[in-house]
Amino acid sequence: MLIELRPGTSAEVAEEVAALAEAHEDVAAWPVRLAGRVFVVASGDESLARVPASPAVLARRPTPEGHWLVRRESGVAPSEVAIGDGVVGGDRLWWAAGPCALESAEDAVETALAVKAQGAHALRAGLSKTRSSPYHFPGKGRRGLEALAEVRRAAAIPVITEVCDPREVEAVAEIADCLQVDGRQLDNRPLLAELGAQPRPVLLMRGPRASLDDWLRAAEFVLTRGNDAVVLCAGASGTPPQPGFGAIAALRARTDLPVVFDPSHSTGSASLVAPASLAAAAYGTDGLLIESCPRPERMYRPGDAAHMFPPESLADLVAACERARDSARSLAVPR
Amino acid sequence: MLIELRPGTSAEVAEEVAALAEAHEDVAAWPVRLAGRVFVVASGDESLARVPASPAVLARRPTPEGHWLVRRESGVAPSEVAIGDGVVGGDRLWWAAGPCALESAEDAVETALAVKAQGAHALRAGLSKTRSSPYHFPGKGRRGLEALAEVRRAAAIPVITEVCDPREVEAVAEIADCLQVDGRQLDNRPLLAELGAQPRPVLLMRGPRASLDDWLRAAEFVLTRGNDAVVLCAGASGTPPQPGFGAIAALRARTDLPVVFDPSHSTGSASLVAPASLAAAAYGTDGLLIESCPRPERMYRPGDAAHMFPPESLADLVAACERARDSARSLAVPR
Amino acid sequence: MLIELRPGTSAEVAEEVAALAEAHEDVAAWPVRLAGRVFVVASGDESLARVPASPAVLARRPTPEGHWLVRRESGVAPSEVAIGDGVVGGDRLWWAAGPCALESAEDAVETALAVKAQGAHALRAGLSKTRSSPYHFPGKGRRGLEALAEVRRAAAIPVITEVCDPREVEAVAEIADCLQVDGRQLDNRPLLAELGAQPRPVLLMRGPRASLDDWLRAAEFVLTRGNDAVVLCAGASGTPPQPGFGAIAALRARTDLPVVFDPSHSTGSASLVAPASLAAAAYGTDGLLIESCPRPERMYRPGDAAHMFPPESLADLVAACERARDSARSLAVPR
Amino acid sequence: MLIELRPGTSAEVAEEVAALAEAHEDVAAWPVRLAGRVFVVASGDESLARVPASPAVLARRPTPEGHWLVRRESGVAPSEVAIGDGVVGGDRLWWAAGPCALESAEDAVETALAVKAQGAHALRAGLSKTRSSPYHFPGKGRRGLEALAEVRRAAAIPVITEVCDPREVEAVAEIADCLQVDGRQLDNRPLLAELGAQPRPVLLMRGPRASLDDWLRAAEFVLTRGNDAVVLCAGASGTPPQPGFGAIAALRARTDLPVVFDPSHSTGSASLVAPASLAAAAYGTDGLLIESCPRPERMYRPGDAAHMFPPESLADLVAACERARDSARSLAVPR
Repeated sequence: MLIELRPGTSAEVAEEVAALAEAHEDVAAWPVRLAGRVFVVASGDESLARVPASPAVLARRPTPEGHWLVRRESGVAPSEVAIGDGVVGGDRLWWAAGPCALESAEDAVETALAVKAQGAHALRAGLSKTRSSPYHFPGKGRRGLEALAEVRRAAAIPVITEVCDPREVEAVAEIADCLQVDGRQLDNRPLLAELGAQPRPVLLMRGPRASLDDWLRAAEFVLTRGNDAVVLCAGASGTPPQPGFGAIAALRARTDLPVVFDPSHSTGSASLVAPASLAAAAYGTDGLLIESCPRPERMYRPGDAAHMFPPESLADLVAACERARDSARSLAVPR
Repeated sequence: MLIELRPGTSAEVAEEVAALAEAHEDVAAWPVRLAGRVFVVASGDESLARVPASPAVLARRPTPEGHWLVRRESGVAPSEVAIGDGVVGGDRLWWAAGPCALESAEDAVETALAVKAQGAHALRAGLSKTRSSPYHFPGKGRRGLEALAEVRRAAAIPVITEVCDPREVEAVAEIADCLQVDGRQLDNRPLLAELGAQPRPVLLMRGPRASLDDWLRAAEFVLTRGNDAVVLCAGASGTPPQPGFGAIAALRARTDLPVVFDPSHSTGSASLVAPASLAAAAYGTDGLLIESCPRPERMYRPGDAAHMFPPESLADLVAACERARDSARSLAVPR
Repeated sequence: MLIELRPGTSAEVAEEVAALAEAHEDVAAWPVRLAGRVFVVASGDESLARVPASPAVLARRPTPEGHWLVRRESGVAPSEVAIGDGVVGGDRLWWAAGPCALESAEDAVETALAVKAQGAHALRAGLSKTRSSPYHFPGKGRRGLEALAEVRRAAAIPVITEVCDPREVEAVAEIADCLQVDGRQLDNRPLLAELGAQPRPVLLMRGPRASLDDWLRAAEFVLTRGNDAVVLCAGASGTPPQPGFGAIAALRARTDLPVVFDPSHSTGSASLVAPASLAAAAYGTDGLLIESCPRPERMYRPGDAAHMFPPESLADLVAACERARDSARSLAVPR
Repeated sequence: MLIELRPGTSAEVAEEVAALAEAHEDVAAWPVRLAGRVFVVASGDESLARVPASPAVLARRPTPEGHWLVRRESGVAPSEVAIGDGVVGGDRLWWAAGPCALESAEDAVETALAVKAQGAHALRAGLSKTRSSPYHFPGKGRRGLEALAEVRRAAAIPVITEVCDPREVEAVAEIADCLQVDGRQLDNRPLLAELGAQPRPVLLMRGPRASLDDWLRAAEFVLTRGNDAVVLCAGASGTPPQPGFGAIAALRARTDLPVVFDPSHSTGSASLVAPASLAAAAYGTDGLLIESCPRPERMYRPGDAAHMFPPESLADLVAACERARDSARSLAVPR
């Protein structure tokens, strides 16, 4: 249950209301401040969680689908999210590029400079990866943080990196400009709670089998802990997995949060990056997250190399996407 | 099993080879002539069907996936298919429009003229529909044939119509320029056999849950009966159903047969026709099949009205699609 | 739309009401007599189909899910269906066995006698099969009818055989005791209409991807043409396909029609026939349809041999299934 | 990559080999001792991870599917796992019962005594739950540990409880006899690593959309950290979710690890617990995990009450399951 308090309610009073909401042993409650408004999140079954009788209470916000803060009608979630000096959700397409796993600092600087020269707003460089086998390298983890900081400084570009252990969130948030969450972690509640309690924007991938509601609930987890800087990143979904362009349009009707698209992992092939990016643009994406590096042949994982779009074509690709997005807008038929 | 005979083998000798292939009681065999080449189709389990010892035999063509004639490497299936005076698979996007169910002849003529004025290569007007409930109207069937002929004459535009009963194929083929098959009929072998034995091109929709191989096998059914004028029409697929743009690209690598896309039924909403058409174009579609009519408010099925793209925007839509297709081609990265 | 007429309405009056219901050009209507009651089926969109103003009209039966006659609350569909001298849906488990494709008449008689000796109520022997490739043998078709008649006579056992072409229904119904429909033909409306117009019981397999409603709508097609002797046969469903035991229980709550189970095709392996049969029994199946033949090594299709349960264990299997069904009943917890 | 060292290799030498395996910066390696054998796990891409040149190396164990230790052919994973004084995987069915969420200590003791009186080998009582909404109670967490200890002591029955935060594993392992992992946490690598490093058996649920390989890889994660006491618990899987009995049989052919079944969550209804338990027994399950409590009407979550099988019928249910398992075994047909 979500309880909205009157504007200007003090932190002290909000804590008191939360304490009242915790009257039943099986309810946990805490205040959260978002978009200048004050809420108390009451985590517990509806029949137990009672709205406290307090003059500070403005309204009860029902959460039948498990989310409310992220929804357009709440007016809470932002339509623009800043990542470093770039903005996702503005008039122009935002985009980031880079390899999904951070290589050596030297190679990463070269990639960062190459994609920045094409106009990229951020570098994507993974430190931790959700890997499905214990025999696959999970990323450099904490060890790579220093290299990441060096790349960020040397190339003067915002960096996005993945995190999957709640115990690492704080350290990563000190370096990275944006924290990415793998779509297989949408049910990792402890991780989401930590991401809600740190100051960086969160890039939340859709899980390959997650419904829109599953995905929005995960975003809601982050907001309920106080962080509303969430960007949703669509990719492949369904059985068999297909690039989920429709999700971009479907989210527009439900949330103001910006939605970007990953044309690389959703297709698995550099040869499909251009069609998928154009398609995502036609469906109204706010941005793109493209696997790209100048020397894919040097990557040690051949599988990754097959994903890499050539950096020298990135600016042309993004320009064509802007045109496709404009075409779709000018041909729009109201729902 | 498929047996290729030497070029120039006479019809008589081909029949003889087929008779030899039928040596086992549980094998049926018949000759078929495609792309100037001569084949004997032997329908029966591989262990039973023996290649006849005949000097006319050129080669055995293995069919492990249940298709060979449709595959690029066979060199049999055409890359261009004529529908009336239009061509699917040429340099320019081919497209058809119209309502999925034929209304009154008067309304249908109005629609036909409206879409023709925008440049449509054909009118789509359904006479029979695969309906999932006995309480839903299955289309006018034979009764509508006369009206269809009238519309075709009055608007001077090729017409495409659906057929689902093998007993109606012959009559429909006398009027329509192209026969459409619903994706839920891909396992309707008697229907496919009849479509292979008549002279009109066949537009074969993908079934919502059909794999690419299921779909290609259905096309193969038509070819094995002698008709190679098959156009594949992609739509929604997967669980949950999503517009299957990737299928367009995936088919390119496997078959020369032209592939078109249905942006209306695959999205279920006129508001998504422009994004889906642009996406299909970026993925390299040869054509579009768009639900459109000038007065959707007069349609008696409200569900259908919600699909209808305004005819007056069709030419602009197709022009934008041509541009998106060109962009994707110029940005192509080899597989 | 379905209209119920007053008990005792004459055929003549019923035809008159049907004619009135066809007032709109896009409605087809016909009377049907089931369970001693009289109905008019009006096939057309609800907004067009008007209930005729006639004193013979008793009630309008809404069909929002596309079926009504098959539902328990209608009181129309029977809970027992006779197949030859056996009954599906009675106190004891009904079961049939045999190979899915009819072999030579000699082998088939041997199989028929073997399964009859174990207590089988019917022989399953396919003449036509829905095959997904044009290169796979589709069954002997009409050619096999004579052999089927011979087996039936020689072994004095009812026979069940598949049909997939509407043009063959009449001929098959002259020989077979029950006509089986492959689950991939649930959308083959012309076939279902023919099955509704002939006098034999119909065994309707569930399609691998059909919902319960899809399946019930196909049964409804048959009933709307006058034939209420429908047995539903559950098998594998879902993605990936799994034996759908739950469907047995779910149907119980919705329809009185008997439900049987195919433990062979739903598992693909003789080694799983016993577990799957016991499971189906625990879930309350009315019967089993088991692939079995005495000499699987003589079958020409190795794939089929791997399905064959040994005939000599069939009676023991069925007895164990009766016990499992009894256990489940005695442990039943009301919903 | 997995490297087996010679029997009797000392801890010191094993650490040395691991250090050698870490020669490449993007490889992490560590020794693990299982079933009296010594291994070095090398987590990194195959092309980077080299087998160290050391006399201690016995063999390289390829892991193409991401698991080897859990597989039957490795001879490492045990076929019996002790939970408290019970054994899963022995001759008799092992079973546990109780509510999925721990209620008050008083109610929990009553439930524990009731199920123990029926012969249960353990009590299931959840402290933490993977919840998909931030507004749903996630369980008592650490706060409930004391109550759990009290129930365990008072009823003298082993207890199984869920954990989903890696930071809580150690504290829970001090109280519980077995730690349960929700199927949505199979990709939560930090959690699985912690579970591999503590001394209690782990009950690993299958994820609703996890393949058998996904599930076995998660078990492998636990083993690679040194804990081989893993019990696999099958439930619902696929789209739409169905009780996955087939998974029980499929696992038998691949792993010796015991496999149990959850008939409550996989069906969602107490009315299906008996059929599903009998079916799982026919498919060869080693055990059952049944939702049950004496006073479901007192549970505050109505949804949970609908799952509860009456405790007084548990012994009868288990006895019937033993019979069904015996029937299936006596009717077994070799694969």
